[in-house]
Amino acid sequence: MKTEIITIGDELLIGQTIDTNSAWIGSELSMAGFDVMKKTSIHDIRTDILNALSEAEGRSNVVIITGGLGPTSDDITKPALCDFFGTRLVINPEVLAMITEMMKRRNFPMNLNNRRQAEVPESCRVLTNAAGTAPGMWFERNGTIFISLPGVPSEMKYLMITHVLPELKQRFRSQAIIHRNIMTYGVPEALLAEKLEGFEAELPVGIKLAYLPSSGVIKLRLTGTGRDAVSVAKLVETRVRLLYSTIPDLIYGEEGETLEMAVGRLLREKGKTLGTAESCTGGNLARLITGIPGSSDYFVGSVVSYANHIKSKLLGVDDKLIENFGAVSEPVVIAMAEGARTVLSADYTIATSGIAGPDGGTEHKPVGTLWTAVSSASGTKAEMHTFGSDRLTNINRFSNVALNILRKQIIKD
Amino acid sequence: MKTEIITIGDELLIGQTIDTNSAWIGSELSMAGFDVMKKTSIHDIRTDILNALSEAEGRSNVVIITGGLGPTSDDITKPALCDFFGTRLVINPEVLAMITEMMKRRNFPMNLNNRRQAEVPESCRVLTNAAGTAPGMWFERNGTIFISLPGVPSEMKYLMITHVLPELKQRFRSQAIIHRNIMTYGVPEALLAEKLEGFEAELPVGIKLAYLPSSGVIKLRLTGTGRDAVSVAKLVETRVRLLYSTIPDLIYGEEGETLEMAVGRLLREKGKTLGTAESCTGGNLARLITGIPGSSDYFVGSVVSYANHIKSKLLGVDDKLIENFGAVSEPVVIAMAEGARTVLSADYTIATSGIAGPDGGTEHKPVGTLWTAVSSASGTKAEMHTFGSDRLTNINRFSNVALNILRKQIIKD
Repeated sequence: MKTEIITIGDELLIGQTIDTNSAWIGSELSMAGFDVMKKTSIHDIRTDILNALSEAEGRSNVVIITGGLGPTSDDITKPALCDFFGTRLVINPEVLAMITEMMKRRNFPMNLNNRRQAEVPESCRVLTNAAGTAPGMWFERNGTIFISLPGVPSEMKYLMITHVLPELKQRFRSQAIIHRNIMTYGVPEALLAEKLEGFEAELPVGIKLAYLPSSGVIKLRLTGTGRDAVSVAKLVETRVRLLYSTIPDLIYGEEGETLEMAVGRLLREKGKTLGTAESCTGGNLARLITGIPGSSDYFVGSVVSYANHIKSKLLGVDDKLIENFGAVSEPVVIAMAEGARTVLSADYTIATSGIAGPDGGTEHKPVGTLWTAVSSASGTKAEMHTFGSDRLTNINRFSNVALNILRKQIIKD
Repeated sequence: MKTEIITIGDELLIGQTIDTNSAWIGSELSMAGFDVMKKTSIHDIRTDILNALSEAEGRSNVVIITGGLGPTSDDITKPALCDFFGTRLVINPEVLAMITEMMKRRNFPMNLNNRRQAEVPESCRVLTNAAGTAPGMWFERNGTIFISLPGVPSEMKYLMITHVLPELKQRFRSQAIIHRNIMTYGVPEALLAEKLEGFEAELPVGIKLAYLPSSGVIKLRLTGTGRDAVSVAKLVETRVRLLYSTIPDLIYGEEGETLEMAVGRLLREKGKTLGTAESCTGGNLARLITGIPGSSDYFVGSVVSYANHIKSKLLGVDDKLIENFGAVSEPVVIAMAEGARTVLSADYTIATSGIAGPDGGTEHKPVGTLWTAVSSASGTKAEMHTFGSDRLTNINRFSNVALNILRKQIIKD
């Protein structure tokens, strides 16, 4: 069953509003097993609306339209729908009664704009909206269902959940669609794809694999489609297990878990605490870790030692190490991690020292160089990595490298 | 000049990724004076891509396409473009050299997938991408320009800023559009709008005012449109000056300057240094400050004292203060700021202690409570603020409150 989404409003085109409505609708439709084949955003302009509706008619079974149903003069979806379906606006008595009641409850007088909200195209079926003043509208022509919903997210969601989704699920015996997300870290997309060449080649019909990369983390999404939800789920599950046995070292979690969440989960399981000593990540590690509710159970704190005098004064790094090897070096990052473990009284510490850029690189230590170390009761070890030249990208990548080294160490211990 | 945006990727249709790319592109095109008439999201499916390209050809002057340029088998934009333009993929030696160099720098071996990223349709003009491995591609046919960009936001933005926008601006002589952004902080949007009622009412034809709020910062964008760039710029400039005299205390900068940038600018001007002592902001202040290139000139570091034993051990906060008043209190936040000034040897320090949520609130100190203090040679002062219940929103709001108090203190000193 093919669906598409049309969102109406200038604010969406000029980027003043990010279109979260269509993302939510797409997610709901797709989880219900319907194919979302297209999303379109257009101006509040009559001909643009008519063109979009014409293009969709016949192409899709269901077209969900949001926006342009408000009471002001730039809201022209209702007249455009009348043009398209060759009908006219009439007052719907039920809707009028609801709006009158609502205004009375809020102590506002009824005015012309409120009355206009009770007008609907004569040929539509009205979907009553208990979450606001603009009703939903249901049309059918030439095998296509058109559903017009308000753009206010809470009202749109109310109508989708109470009217649209249940009715569509009943009408269209849909295919079952199962998504599973497996989180990986450690190799770039191209190399991961190489490792999964055989896995991909042997995927059965009805199962697809997608790569979704972000700051070094690659989310692998397996999507299974078929008649029967239980057998699709089973089929996907066997492939998830195969994925685990194909790249065991690269998988750290599932369903959108971040590296800092995975680290937090492991620390909580083992009852251990964590601290960080950050130079080049400048507090980003601490902020990622503390962004998680309840992180105070395992995170004690951080020393952001941006200036060298803080590395020596607060973390006890020997000035001579910095003098001889430079702040971005293996001996210094090891001393930072070990110093932090003492001073913060934490079971685990991670330290970072690097050159985030855009300036500050040298021939031997170019911009993008990272030294990171993890320290625990079982010892301290350091690694060097090299990335690109964009400062914020580097800070994110540096942080993920450090979190992953820590994660592996906690598992090993 | 008509433009449209096509974003390619299943993840956009099923709502797994919110399409922020098209919002950003729409905003940039519209600020450049171009009409963004349509945005479309489609599957990674050959026929869907071909249909979308066909529909756009002739209808728009410029079509910007993002996504599907990665090295894996679900990335099919390049072969689809070849079909559409009747051309074939060829290795581009320059792109190949760039990718080889990049992989070498990161110590990864080149494989077939990396080589595939250097393949481009023979008939396109290549836009070199210094921010990643997938180049941009520029096609022209029947009066329509098609520009294909990678879906990774940082790479897409790099190519838009360095190649696409400058060239489009040169090619299409549009109306003069002048934007000026005035950054404000301190009152919510509704109150700011009230203060600017008279200012707005007296705006001349051709000048518009928009409110763009984010984490308490409200960007006021004045947009002037007209035939002649010089006279439009003059007209906008007089309104900017009027804005400064209308709300002098609320304006802290211009053109997208953040509060941490404003603080950095002031510290640099006065030759002073800064450190932070963070509890509830968990390193977010340090990471905002160090996100700015060159911040090591004035930022010395931070003590993220998440656990109370770090507040006392590293910042010298008297245990009895914590015992008697609680960690989230005026005496403790003052002791943190003052302790940090000693231990970090900084001219200015800011401290935060609060309850970010979602749990941990009490009747007298509900979730969203923030105590923040600024300390300098002229003394220490603290303020309390209260926000809502969402953790990440609170951390951002807390950080901006603290940065603004610091900013005002530096100006005062």
